[in-house]
Amino acid sequence: MKYPNNLNKKYQNPLTYKNRGMDLESELNESNTYYLEIDKALIYKKPTPIGVADVSYSQKGKVIERGFFKEPSTLDYNGLYRGKYIEYEAKVTKNRTSFPLANIHPHQIKHVRSVLRHDGIVFLIIKINEMVYLLKGTDFIEYIDSHERKSIEYEFIKEKGYMIKYGYNPTLDYLELVDEIYFKEK
Amino acid sequence: MKYPNNLNKKYQNPLTYKNRGMDLESELNESNTYYLEIDKALIYKKPTPIGVADVSYSQKGKVIERGFFKEPSTLDYNGLYRGKYIEYEAKVTKNRTSFPLANIHPHQIKHVRSVLRHDGIVFLIIKINEMVYLLKGTDFIEYIDSHERKSIEYEFIKEKGYMIKYGYNPTLDYLELVDEIYFKEK
Repeated sequence: MKYPNNLNKKYQNPLTYKNRGMDLESELNESNTYYLEIDKALIYKKPTPIGVADVSYSQKGKVIERGFFKEPSTLDYNGLYRGKYIEYEAKVTKNRTSFPLANIHPHQIKHVRSVLRHDGIVFLIIKINEMVYLLKGTDFIEYIDSHERKSIEYEFIKEKGYMIKYGYNPTLDYLELVDEIYFKEK
Repeated sequence: MKYPNNLNKKYQNPLTYKNRGMDLESELNESNTYYLEIDKALIYKKPTPIGVADVSYSQKGKVIERGFFKEPSTLDYNGLYRGKYIEYEAKVTKNRTSFPLANIHPHQIKHVRSVLRHDGIVFLIIKINEMVYLLKGTDFIEYIDSHERKSIEYEFIKEKGYMIKYGYNPTLDYLELVDEIYFKEK
C-alpha cells in the first residue's frame, strides 16, 4: 500500500473520528497533548522505569547497551488539573466479562490507597468491550476490599464506572468526567 | 579495603550524619523514601525518559538492547503533599559564584511557568558551595524575566532561597520549608 509523501499522518483524516483500533495509551497521550496545548491540564505519562545494565559513549552522548523494564510502584499518568493532583492507570482487557486484577500490581493498589489518603484524585481508565470507563479510586478499593475475586466483574464497571466518550479533540475527554465527579460541588 | 560481610551498608553509621559527599539525587531519594515510610508525602523521582531502539526477548521478559536518554520536558520529582501537587528539579553546580542556567532546559522553564499558572507548588533545589537551597518557582521565573544573564548569581540564591538543613532522617528536610513557605496561612 502506498501513502502520498506529502501527507502528514497526524492530519490525514482531520474530520473523521480517530481510528478505533488505536491503542488506549496513544489515545490518552493524544488527549493529554491536546489538554496541554489548550493549557487545560498538565498530565504526562511517566516514562517506564528502566534498569540500565550497560552503557557506551557515542558522539551524541550516553547509549544504553543493555537495560531492563522495571515494575512500576505508582500509576502510569500523573499531573496537575485545576490546582489538584491527579493520577491514573490505563489498562485494556480483551476479557469480555471481567477485568483481571493481575493487570494491577500490589504496589500500585497500595499506591491508590495512599493517593486517596493524601487527598489526590486517583482512578483507573479501563477499556473493555471496546468501551472506555473511568473507575474512581474509591470504588476500585471498595471492590478489592469486599470481594475475594481476582477480577472486577464487567457489571460492576458498568454500574460504578463513567463511560468516556470518543471525540475528535480530545480523543478521550476524560477531564469532562473529572469535572463532573470531583469538582461538582465547587 | 575490607568491609565485614555482615554489616548492612545502609546501617553502618546510623547515628552520624549522612555522608556529605553523597550526591544530591541520593539525598533527595533517601528523604522521599523516608517521607513515604512515615506517610508524610508521596514524592517520586520520575524515571529518565528513554528512547528504546532495539529489544530482544529473554526468559525474564523484554530486554533493551539499545536505548537513548531523552531530554526531559518536565521536572525530575513530582508528587502529592498535603493535598497539593508538588514538583521540583534538583541540580548541583561546582560553580561558586552562580548557578548556570544551561542546567535547566527551555522546556523545563516553560513547564515551571505552567505549574505556577495551574496552582501547583514548584521550585528548584540547588546545591552550591556545599549548601542546599530551595528556590521558589516564582522567584526563579522573576529572575529569568528580569535578567539577561545566563546564570543565577549566588547572591540572589542566598537572598531569595531557603537553606535546607542536613539531618539524619530525613537527610534533607525540605518539606519543613515547604510547610513554612506554602502552607503558612492555613
